[in-house]
Amino acid sequence: MRIVILGGAGFIGKKLVLKLLQRGRISLNGRPVEAFDRLVVFDKVKAVGLPDDSRLQVEEGDICDLDTIRELLGNHTDLIFHLAAVVSGEAEKNFDLGMNVNLQASMQILEYCRFMKKAPVLVFASSCAAYGGDPSKEVRDDTAPNPQSSYGTQKVMVDLLINDYSRRGFIEGRALRLPTIAVRPGKPNAATTSFVSSIIREPLQGQRANCPVSPDVKLWILSPDKVTDCFIHAAHIPAQAFKSSRVVNLPGLTVTVKDMVDALEKAAGKEAVELIDWEPDAFLQSIVLTFPREFATGKALALGFHGDRSLESIINAFIEEELK
Amino acid sequence: MRIVILGGAGFIGKKLVLKLLQRGRISLNGRPVEAFDRLVVFDKVKAVGLPDDSRLQVEEGDICDLDTIRELLGNHTDLIFHLAAVVSGEAEKNFDLGMNVNLQASMQILEYCRFMKKAPVLVFASSCAAYGGDPSKEVRDDTAPNPQSSYGTQKVMVDLLINDYSRRGFIEGRALRLPTIAVRPGKPNAATTSFVSSIIREPLQGQRANCPVSPDVKLWILSPDKVTDCFIHAAHIPAQAFKSSRVVNLPGLTVTVKDMVDALEKAAGKEAVELIDWEPDAFLQSIVLTFPREFATGKALALGFHGDRSLESIINAFIEEELK
Repeated sequence: MRIVILGGAGFIGKKLVLKLLQRGRISLNGRPVEAFDRLVVFDKVKAVGLPDDSRLQVEEGDICDLDTIRELLGNHTDLIFHLAAVVSGEAEKNFDLGMNVNLQASMQILEYCRFMKKAPVLVFASSCAAYGGDPSKEVRDDTAPNPQSSYGTQKVMVDLLINDYSRRGFIEGRALRLPTIAVRPGKPNAATTSFVSSIIREPLQGQRANCPVSPDVKLWILSPDKVTDCFIHAAHIPAQAFKSSRVVNLPGLTVTVKDMVDALEKAAGKEAVELIDWEPDAFLQSIVLTFPREFATGKALALGFHGDRSLESIINAFIEEELK
Repeated sequence: MRIVILGGAGFIGKKLVLKLLQRGRISLNGRPVEAFDRLVVFDKVKAVGLPDDSRLQVEEGDICDLDTIRELLGNHTDLIFHLAAVVSGEAEKNFDLGMNVNLQASMQILEYCRFMKKAPVLVFASSCAAYGGDPSKEVRDDTAPNPQSSYGTQKVMVDLLINDYSRRGFIEGRALRLPTIAVRPGKPNAATTSFVSSIIREPLQGQRANCPVSPDVKLWILSPDKVTDCFIHAAHIPAQAFKSSRVVNLPGLTVTVKDMVDALEKAAGKEAVELIDWEPDAFLQSIVLTFPREFATGKALALGFHGDRSLESIINAFIEEELK
């Protein structure tokens, strides 16, 4: 069995690699678990810090280049995790880049898969940036996407294609709409929700962080550990369980920024909280404040996806896994 | 003022041409009505049967060809009606053709508009084939699209782009999700809902027609006359009235096939009804039976769109306009 992770050099990609290598086996589309002999990690930069493992193959290149995709996927790939994306803030500022990577490259990958010998299982990292408009309304599984960002628009368009390509038997797709992933390790990035991790991660390491929204703003979050489990679980779920749509809103936690700050204080004291600056940012607010933050994720729960127990468990896991 | 109708040789396009020529003036985006001096009708075949009018310019060509689009839209076009499409049955049978015309050509047109001197008003003919899954559920304005056809998928993808291009100020878009249009004049076409018009149109002219679904099947319909009015009205509505989405489900009528047959009998007697054959068609059913047929169209009504009064008024208008 051959697995390819597109966009695998990011921290979620790497977490996924580690989990897969540790398991060594995976179930696809309801079939019995099976060992894989090849795990290809592809990104625009070479993934670093991965273990020395004969099953692992690290590749770098341009996801928009068809020859690169052809070489990566070959005639036969059983499972593709498609995590590659230009993040929300960057896709908003650079429209062409977002359209090329988030939409056109994804369309090209689906089209390549269509002509593979056997329809691969493809797990796509979509986003709850799919929703917007009136962010105070609860999002249900049958709520219309209404993205208020180019990133969200591009994600929903690919979700739709994944459904149609799956319906036609071209691929075995699953599109997971991710909550804001927190707490991310590493450095701030150009995601509009980057601050959600920063206000925990930086103070825990004695560094200042800026919160561009007010403490009462609500967020919909999921931990890196749980989202990685969700990706692996999605590959396993049998097609018929999805019924008429391969799109799933993953279960997250609704928390306020204040909840996060309180949890930070509990974990690291008042001096950690004092490292947070509160400077509003109109650009970030114009995107982030359109994201809904209350979800009813009945479909995900029925399909066996799990979110986090609590904010405390998320922060403690981050301290445990990333800071120790 | 310059207007271009893409896909204008079809019967709705021609109806739109006649209405526009008669009015001579139109209001765009809430501005005062203004006379137009150029109305370009473009299609893959030359539109025939249009009046001799110095404002009218008839063009034929391939909508997938960028040079053709460049020549049609030039540096400046105030209003574009984008009605060009590969119909549902054809897009289902020929995936590549549907993707090229319904998705790729539309993307190319939007991208061309993005770089025009002034953002044009663009009215797009989307479709209620956007919806599906559990067709017994009422579709509200905030119900998630869940197309069960490639045609529906392609339409929803363009709707999403129209929203994003409008949000960014690249175009002044409006996407109207059309019910099944009935009664269409002319010959049956490859739309999966072609029979909806056939079972009225053919018997009224003494010809046999086949109904591939059972009499209790419900449909969501709008007349050619009213949908044309909706297109012109959509161009007029000021942008801010749409709030966070340019997509509108047009108001239709929910009728059963039996209602239609009864109305036919009322208009043309028992002998007309006896011209209908009842041969099921698995392919047509696999698409048509996924279309929802109950809609709450509060947004359309609030924006001033009007549907038909009754099935009788639709059939009488067809007899009046097309058969006399």
